[in-house]
Amino acid sequence: MALALSLGRRGQGTCWPNPSVGCVIVRDGRVVGRGWTQPGGRPHAEPIALAQAGEAAQGATAYVSLEPCSHHGKTPPCAEALIEAGIARVVSAIEDSDPRVAGQGFALLREAGIDVVTGVLAEQAARDHAGFFLKTEQGRPFVTLKLASSFDGRIATETGHSQWITGPNARRAVHAMRARHDAVMVGAGTARADDPSLTVRDLGVERQPVRVVVSRHLDLPLMGHLARTASKIPVWLCHGPHPDPDRARTWEGLGARLIPCALDDHHVEAADLLHQLGQAGLTRVFCEGGSALAASLLESDLVDELVGFTAGLTIGAEGLSAIGALGLDTLETAPRFDLIETQVVGGDILHRWARVTH
Amino acid sequence: MALALSLGRRGQGTCWPNPSVGCVIVRDGRVVGRGWTQPGGRPHAEPIALAQAGEAAQGATAYVSLEPCSHHGKTPPCAEALIEAGIARVVSAIEDSDPRVAGQGFALLREAGIDVVTGVLAEQAARDHAGFFLKTEQGRPFVTLKLASSFDGRIATETGHSQWITGPNARRAVHAMRARHDAVMVGAGTARADDPSLTVRDLGVERQPVRVVVSRHLDLPLMGHLARTASKIPVWLCHGPHPDPDRARTWEGLGARLIPCALDDHHVEAADLLHQLGQAGLTRVFCEGGSALAASLLESDLVDELVGFTAGLTIGAEGLSAIGALGLDTLETAPRFDLIETQVVGGDILHRWARVTH
Repeated sequence: MALALSLGRRGQGTCWPNPSVGCVIVRDGRVVGRGWTQPGGRPHAEPIALAQAGEAAQGATAYVSLEPCSHHGKTPPCAEALIEAGIARVVSAIEDSDPRVAGQGFALLREAGIDVVTGVLAEQAARDHAGFFLKTEQGRPFVTLKLASSFDGRIATETGHSQWITGPNARRAVHAMRARHDAVMVGAGTARADDPSLTVRDLGVERQPVRVVVSRHLDLPLMGHLARTASKIPVWLCHGPHPDPDRARTWEGLGARLIPCALDDHHVEAADLLHQLGQAGLTRVFCEGGSALAASLLESDLVDELVGFTAGLTIGAEGLSAIGALGLDTLETAPRFDLIETQVVGGDILHRWARVTH
Repeated sequence: MALALSLGRRGQGTCWPNPSVGCVIVRDGRVVGRGWTQPGGRPHAEPIALAQAGEAAQGATAYVSLEPCSHHGKTPPCAEALIEAGIARVVSAIEDSDPRVAGQGFALLREAGIDVVTGVLAEQAARDHAGFFLKTEQGRPFVTLKLASSFDGRIATETGHSQWITGPNARRAVHAMRARHDAVMVGAGTARADDPSLTVRDLGVERQPVRVVVSRHLDLPLMGHLARTASKIPVWLCHGPHPDPDRARTWEGLGARLIPCALDDHHVEAADLLHQLGQAGLTRVFCEGGSALAASLLESDLVDELVGFTAGLTIGAEGLSAIGALGLDTLETAPRFDLIETQVVGGDILHRWARVTH
């Protein structure tokens, strides 16, 4: 199962709106087939592993990181494929929460006389599929908020100087994290100040994540990296009501997708923003700031994982804060996270925190 | 030698103005004596280890974490004691930079026909004795700056609420760090806002570190923890020229020691502050903020080790910054540190950084 889960994670970021599943087929103690959900979400993991196994699937055990699907979508249901191949036993990590599956995959298998076990490494599976489950259950993607800052939590000097706070190894780690998400998201201020590409570089990925920019007024530079590459790698602009029609047309002409969102005071509302992204099919979003977007997500309790890179330099109080104003009076109401992992990356520290569930 | 060094570290914080030395005597592959500098700086490590060894010191090897002293101070020179005990070989980690010793300890031993080796684990010894060496060479103590902050580098909410950002394990670790320094130092703002005790609690230490408060005007609460305990545990107040004579008299009456320092614009000048503390005998100072004192030490490049505790909560941009204004324009001039260690302490991260030497 650990292998099936790790195969499943290979597809993260590439197979939205589908879950990224891993499947291992074992016969007489030997692995005879391995598969994971392919880019775009098809084929699924099970038919790939079954095709690899061929005749050996007869009487074998299939380990699957998620309940096999039972509905006829764009592919025939995987539960049927397992039955037809003569699989004797299915071990699954976790039940699918998609109402079109939700136990029916297991039921189909059992009806066909297959021995079904579920709940194996369910905790890890719940983490791996968190984005798909959140989209199914709450209509929004999983949100990772990444902030690279100085020892004292600053992302730039007063004059906006931010290259580079962290070292090359940390920046490479960020590219690997982008690759495991469906989309990379920044606020308009960051898009204007840094002119970022928001692509995955130097990792040989076939499929780039969607670039999402949150900009109420669509006042983004038309000569920047995003504008120039929007026809090749998706750019989605999440804006408020009634954007300037010229700007909207220009961006559409450049190839960007415009996504209207509700406002909350003067900003794009975080909950509606994520609802729209969920509707558009995203399951995992990697937000890289800036401080206003970070604060707005945190205030609405919509950050599932917090990733920090801390560098060994001090910038001081005039520097730009990693997180904008949160309006807290006491510490009791501060958004809290549990430590998952720390790691030394080059000369910097990587630390990952999971949202405390109430 | 690793054992001698680790014995030596036991005395850190208790034997200033003397260095904290460890000594192990080995005869025929067996440890026959162990010693380290005792509270107050006397007896030294060597005579304790020799007394333990007794007759067994004849022909034995002495491992010493610092060159044995050669001058008649308040105790007879350790080099002589080693010679008289019949030690055959002395292995030392590093030469003493005190001009009263500086190679003369080794010379005395060699003249007596003792085989002398030095430079064993010298790097670790240089770190362990850094405070003593800095005081000898530059006239100032080693400075550790500790800041416990939220994920986004804040030490309190806008309203000053700071209890507790880090968890009980991190706070216990801070007490252990205090115990290994000669003094704990804070700025006047912190002394007023938090009314701290600045003592080492729950660790059974015999000797408390000196409490140093930097307060230009001596405008500190007279009903607080520091005032009430100043007669029992030393309180040193570093102030600017011409403090209010009533306040000065009151604090002296309470048992505090007043240390006048030079001003730099409107603040106590960091370099003179540390010079005065070095003159007073301190070799290791543990600064716990606040943000203004932290910034003033960092601006003057006087922080030797930076210790961070990072907690999994976000406070936002209105929160109080861990480090005050540093007046940087670009990142090139930012104070930089190299990572020494990271550790998970309870639910928080401890990270230690060493000053980058230019």
